[in-house]
Amino acid sequence: MGGPEIERLISLFGKLPGFGPRSARRVVLSLLKQPHSRMIPLANALEQAAKMVRICSSCGNLDSSDPCQICNDLNRNRELICIVETVGDLWALEKTGAFRGYYQVLGGTLSPLAGVGPEDLNLAPLLKRLKRNEVKEIILALGATVEGVTTMHWLYDQLLPWHVKITRVGQGIPMGGSLEILDEGTLTAALTARRPA
Amino acid sequence: MGGPEIERLISLFGKLPGFGPRSARRVVLSLLKQPHSRMIPLANALEQAAKMVRICSSCGNLDSSDPCQICNDLNRNRELICIVETVGDLWALEKTGAFRGYYQVLGGTLSPLAGVGPEDLNLAPLLKRLKRNEVKEIILALGATVEGVTTMHWLYDQLLPWHVKITRVGQGIPMGGSLEILDEGTLTAALTARRPA
Repeated sequence: MGGPEIERLISLFGKLPGFGPRSARRVVLSLLKQPHSRMIPLANALEQAAKMVRICSSCGNLDSSDPCQICNDLNRNRELICIVETVGDLWALEKTGAFRGYYQVLGGTLSPLAGVGPEDLNLAPLLKRLKRNEVKEIILALGATVEGVTTMHWLYDQLLPWHVKITRVGQGIPMGGSLEILDEGTLTAALTARRPA
Repeated sequence: MGGPEIERLISLFGKLPGFGPRSARRVVLSLLKQPHSRMIPLANALEQAAKMVRICSSCGNLDSSDPCQICNDLNRNRELICIVETVGDLWALEKTGAFRGYYQVLGGTLSPLAGVGPEDLNLAPLLKRLKRNEVKEIILALGATVEGVTTMHWLYDQLLPWHVKITRVGQGIPMGGSLEILDEGTLTAALTARRPA
């Protein structure tokens, strides 16, 4: 429609998560209207970030520094470690501002079907921290999927000998959620997790 | 969360149409996992397209060549011109493959409130084509909004002296649309536009 350069851009955008051909066209069109004020800055930001991004050797986060900003932040609570599956989960929790400890990104969940075993999970940095005797509580914040729950059970067994408190994130009705549209599993979990009002 | 480079990238993506902070994080995260195979190609494609993009002096399309690919395509029907409001509308029609004439992109619709008058619409190239006596039919393909309809009326008056056939795109029930959820205006138009079954 607009020459090979524009077609290529639309096709690259179309491969991003949440994009289809129509939304890719829409985004490219909006960018093309401001080539200098929007496309060039985005191109430069992509190049910069691609050059700088590292996997934090301490927690598994993605950052332009290693250790990442979170691991470098000395004002956080060293006694608290939150185990998450992905960097996306870490970012989502971090956005809440509700957690002031450190993280451990597993990089996956145990899944015999997908061939993911314990050796594929990024746990070594956590064991180092445990050996330094600074950890008091480990929060298991994996998703409530079959793999997530299996992995949490396995982690519980692994962490038990270290004599630290092991907790799991609460389960129940999401904020703003109406009971009517929720699945039976969530409703059952919400009933089980009931507290005095 | 991931250093200033990543934050900047998220903020730039968050400004694209259809994006919020969450979807921007999701896209950036997916890109960061493949910096070399996906981020660098996207950065290069953006830079290339930004450098190459031109507004077609003949129809108003955005393309890396001027005249654009469509205007350069000699296998199209010179007798047929389709007037659209935006480049996005042109691309959407072109995707259907149902139109084999040429286009004229107005770049807007008449809107006294927004201060858009006849002199702001890109019509000069169409008048040139009309003077060459090659046009037989002009299709008005503007949206069925107040501004779109007003502009179509105005265009009709402007084009009448040229003695060409002037048509409007059909109005009615969209494909796959259920009557129940459609507005009264569309239903009225669909009834008016009824044809023998």
